[in-house]
Amino acid sequence: MTRFASLGELRAACLDLPIGDAKAAAVVAAREAVLTKPPRSLGRLEEAVAWLASWQGASRPHLDNVEILVFAGNHGVTAQGVSAYPAAVTAQMVANFASGGAAINQLARADGAELRVVALDLDAPTVDFTKAPAMDEAEFLDAVAAGHKALSPDADLVVLGEMGIGNTTAAAAIAAALFGGGGARFAGRGTGVDDDGLRRKQAAIDAGLELHRDALHDPLRVAASLGGRELAAILGATLAARHARIPVLIDGFVSTAAVAPLKQLRADALDHALAGHLSAEAGHRLLLQELGLNPLLDLNMRLGEGSGAAVAVLVLRAALACHSGMATFAEAHVSNKDA
Amino acid sequence: MTRFASLGELRAACLDLPIGDAKAAAVVAAREAVLTKPPRSLGRLEEAVAWLASWQGASRPHLDNVEILVFAGNHGVTAQGVSAYPAAVTAQMVANFASGGAAINQLARADGAELRVVALDLDAPTVDFTKAPAMDEAEFLDAVAAGHKALSPDADLVVLGEMGIGNTTAAAAIAAALFGGGGARFAGRGTGVDDDGLRRKQAAIDAGLELHRDALHDPLRVAASLGGRELAAILGATLAARHARIPVLIDGFVSTAAVAPLKQLRADALDHALAGHLSAEAGHRLLLQELGLNPLLDLNMRLGEGSGAAVAVLVLRAALACHSGMATFAEAHVSNKDA
Repeated sequence: MTRFASLGELRAACLDLPIGDAKAAAVVAAREAVLTKPPRSLGRLEEAVAWLASWQGASRPHLDNVEILVFAGNHGVTAQGVSAYPAAVTAQMVANFASGGAAINQLARADGAELRVVALDLDAPTVDFTKAPAMDEAEFLDAVAAGHKALSPDADLVVLGEMGIGNTTAAAAIAAALFGGGGARFAGRGTGVDDDGLRRKQAAIDAGLELHRDALHDPLRVAASLGGRELAAILGATLAARHARIPVLIDGFVSTAAVAPLKQLRADALDHALAGHLSAEAGHRLLLQELGLNPLLDLNMRLGEGSGAAVAVLVLRAALACHSGMATFAEAHVSNKDA
Repeated sequence: MTRFASLGELRAACLDLPIGDAKAAAVVAAREAVLTKPPRSLGRLEEAVAWLASWQGASRPHLDNVEILVFAGNHGVTAQGVSAYPAAVTAQMVANFASGGAAINQLARADGAELRVVALDLDAPTVDFTKAPAMDEAEFLDAVAAGHKALSPDADLVVLGEMGIGNTTAAAAIAAALFGGGGARFAGRGTGVDDDGLRRKQAAIDAGLELHRDALHDPLRVAASLGGRELAAILGATLAARHARIPVLIDGFVSTAAVAPLKQLRADALDHALAGHLSAEAGHRLLLQELGLNPLLDLNMRLGEGSGAAVAVLVLRAALACHSGMATFAEAHVSNKDA
C-alpha cells in the first residue's frame, strides 16, 4: 500500500509517470494491417487494442483479469438539499452491491470481471464544502491511499466507478474549479433533482468556489476541498494503475471529475485511461471536451456505479477477439487491396 | 419458404404488417421503474429491453437464439471501377467466413450467436446498373426469397449483414433514388477507393439514376434496378422477421439501404429494427437521418459483414442482464426517491 505522507509527495508521484509502450502498440498496428478487412475498417476497435497493448506493455494484449472497483462515500453538502435521494441510500446501495442486486453486479457478470466495492467511512460524511474544506489533507490522503491499495497489481484492465448521494455536486464543483464557469456550467440533475434542487446545487457549488478560492490554483487542493472520498479514491486508483501499467476505463461524470486533477498536473496523465461512456448527466460532455477525451459509448446512461464503463468492457472484449482471432490475408488466401 | 410470385404480391406483404406488443413493453417499463436505480438512468439499455419485449411479444424478453445472417453477392457495376478490391474477394471472404477467419466469426462467438452465411449466385454477378436493371423481377424475387427462408423461425434476435465487392455503390444508388441528391450525396469510399474511384462511383450512380428514372417512384423497383442480391435478401429477411415477430439489428450503410425501401412503402415498417452502429461510410449518417433511425453505437467501423450490429448485440445482452437480474427497491430495502 502507498500512503502518501503529504500533498507534496502525492504531487511528485503525479508528475513522475511511466509512458506507454510504443513498440507493443506498433506490433498490434502491424498485425491489424494484414488482417482480412480493409485497413482501419474496425475503427475504434483497432485503436482500443493498440491502446491496451501500449499500457499493458504487451504486443498480444489480454483481458484475463478485468477488475471493477466501485468506491462509495457520503457528502456533507447533501445538507444543502442538492440530491433527490436521502444520504442513507449510499449505504443501502452498498448493501445492494454486496447482495448482487445492482446494475453493476449484472454488468460485472456480463463482463467476466471481478467486482469489488470499497465503502469509505460512510458514517462520517465529508464536511459540507460550503462551510469548510470537504476533507483536510490527512483525510484526503487516506482516501487516495484507499484507492491506491484497492487495485490488484495483476489486473489487466480496471473499471473505476462510484456511489455517493450528493457526489454529482462535488464533481461539478471540481469541474468548475478546474475549468471555470461556476455551478451553472457543470451542475446537472444527478439522480433527478427538480428545478429548485438544481438551483440549490448551483448555489452550493458557487458558494464552495468562493469559499475555497485560495485553493483553486492547486488541482489536488481542489480535489480535497470540493471533492469526496470516493472521488479521491478513484484518483488514487488511477494513479496507481498508471504506475502499474494497467489501463483504466473511466465511467461517467463523477469518475471523470475525480481524475481531472491528474491531467491538470501533467498533460499526458490520463493517456492510460479511456472514457467508457458519455453520461447523460449535463456536465459530462463539457468535461470530457475540456480533458480531450472521446468516449467509446453514448447510451444515454447516467447511473454511475461504473456502469457505462462496464458496458464498454464488452466492446474491448469484442475488439480483442477480432484482433486475436482473425485470419491474415495470406492465411485466408484473400486478395489484398494492392493485389 | 415464401417465394412471392410478383412484385405486387411482395408489395402486399410489405403493407400488411403486424405491430408491436405494447402490453409486453409496458410490463418491462413498469419493472424498470422499481429496479434499484434512478428512473430511466440506464438510458438506451432500458429502451432496448422494452423494444425486445414489444417485438418478441414477451414481457420477459430473452436472447437465447441470436442469429447472424450474412448474405453475399456480386455486382456488375464493379466494371465501372468503383471498388478498391477485385470482385473475386467476395467469394474469398465467403471462404474466410466458412473457415472462421473473418471479424464476424469472432464477433459471433463473443455474442453467443449462430452465424450463417448465404452466398447468392456469386458466379453470376448482377447486371451493371449503368447498362440495364441490376436484376429482373424474377431474379429480385429469388433473392428476396433467399433472405426470407434463411431466417430461423425460432430466432429471438437477428443481425443482418452483407459482403459484396461493389455493394456500397449499389447502396448509395438506392439511397439517392429514394431520398434524392444523386451520387454526390451518398457515395463514400467503401473499402477505400481513391479520389478517381470515388468520382467513377458517383458517375456510375448518376448514370444509373438517369437510366432507371422511370422506376424510381417504386421502392421495390429501385431495389431491383439498382441494388443487389444480398441487399434484396436483407430486405426479405427483415420482412420475414417482422411477420415472425423477431426483432432485427441492422448493420451499416449497405444493410440500411437494403431495408430503406420497406420504410418508403409503410412508415412503421422498420419499427422492429434497431440500427446497431453508425458506419464511418460517408452516406450512412444521412441515410439513418432520412429513416429516423438512431444508431446504438458509433465506433467508427466500416467493415460490413454485420460487424457493427454484432457488437451491438453485446449491449443488448448487457441491457437484458440488468433488467432480469437487478433487485427492486423493495427487495433490496433501498429508499426510493419518493420515500
